[in-house]
Amino acid sequence: MNTSDHTSKQFDVELEAIRAYVLQMGGLVESQIKSAIVSLVDGDVALMNRVIEDDHRVNAMEVKIDEACSQVIARRQPTASDLRLVMMVVKTITDLERIGDEAEKIARMAKMLSQKHGLAIPRYNEVKHASEIAVDMLRKSLDAFARLDVQMAADVVRQDDLVDDEFRSIMRYLITFMMEDPRTISTSLEILFVAKAIERIGDHAKNISEYVIYMVKGRDVRHVTRDEIEREIQ
Amino acid sequence: MNTSDHTSKQFDVELEAIRAYVLQMGGLVESQIKSAIVSLVDGDVALMNRVIEDDHRVNAMEVKIDEACSQVIARRQPTASDLRLVMMVVKTITDLERIGDEAEKIARMAKMLSQKHGLAIPRYNEVKHASEIAVDMLRKSLDAFARLDVQMAADVVRQDDLVDDEFRSIMRYLITFMMEDPRTISTSLEILFVAKAIERIGDHAKNISEYVIYMVKGRDVRHVTRDEIEREIQ
Repeated sequence: MNTSDHTSKQFDVELEAIRAYVLQMGGLVESQIKSAIVSLVDGDVALMNRVIEDDHRVNAMEVKIDEACSQVIARRQPTASDLRLVMMVVKTITDLERIGDEAEKIARMAKMLSQKHGLAIPRYNEVKHASEIAVDMLRKSLDAFARLDVQMAADVVRQDDLVDDEFRSIMRYLITFMMEDPRTISTSLEILFVAKAIERIGDHAKNISEYVIYMVKGRDVRHVTRDEIEREIQ
Repeated sequence: MNTSDHTSKQFDVELEAIRAYVLQMGGLVESQIKSAIVSLVDGDVALMNRVIEDDHRVNAMEVKIDEACSQVIARRQPTASDLRLVMMVVKTITDLERIGDEAEKIARMAKMLSQKHGLAIPRYNEVKHASEIAVDMLRKSLDAFARLDVQMAADVVRQDDLVDDEFRSIMRYLITFMMEDPRTISTSLEILFVAKAIERIGDHAKNISEYVIYMVKGRDVRHVTRDEIEREIQ
């Protein structure tokens, strides 16, 4: 029996389990974002509370996967691309955990907003639309992660501009809204912070995609321009 | 010659180099925050530009340290606390890099503000004060990192509340300011985002401190309550 083959096979099995767990964590995080936005739009306080409470599940998954990664490194001593794969996981789950935090923040802001009765709440449609782009980015970044698909990862990097545009457009609108009726300022700021949280989710999805490109191409694209990324994946 | 001792000594030498490099990166990031705030308060456009340009230096350091960590894992195959130490570095530099991003954002917002001539800019003193707490947190978290000092790390975790309080107090003031004179809304929002960036810097310093506690205590305190952390470090 070839020990190295055996080690490598064991490594594959363990890594596959870790990857499945990351996707499961990604699924939970995705559902946290969606629930946070639904709770905001519907004013569903029970759902807001559930999102806030469930954040600990996301956190627990991060800790568990982190430990599994350390164990697989200590036991299997991977090198080269195997090691890069594990490091990709370690970084990915940090971003997933922070997306979970943003979902929790959205639910908390939704609670603040739900206590402001009788005020017209502006721009829910736009916020919802921005969140749909962010969720789409997250889903694609996890697909890219699962299949090590650099084309899809590059798509996500491109898409990040859309979320940023949405954020700026919501902000411009809110500024006008606040100027016309200064009594809406406090409410508008809550909406603005919700939009900011969505923008952050897009940033984290972009980070995850950049780790995938690094993993596959062996070159760190985290701090290079869009054009260079396009050239790199050709 | 004992191979294991030799390996361990080599590991120590390489790890020491990595740690020194992390502290150097931390020093650069600290100076980026300070310069960003000085440029904002003094309206120094040349300094704003320098902060924006220098962000690539922070990014380059992250990539380099990341690679050094992967190399040390592949070559020295550390386990247990040695491995935890390397993983602590990998996570720490991610937070340092993002603090660098926040400093760059502050400099960009300072540029926007510097173009708004003739407007009273509110709450610079409070913003400066908040930034001083955040810088102090960063410095302490790096000290805690360098000396694996859990008491100091726990101090930083406690201090995070102060930055959050400062942020909320700046926000409350700005809401009143905007309501009294809606023409200041756009400017006030820039200030608010500067305050938000400072709050984020505090969050990242807290993250770094929590990695130190994990490293030393072997228990992940990232998602436990303040009281539990206090008990843990006793």
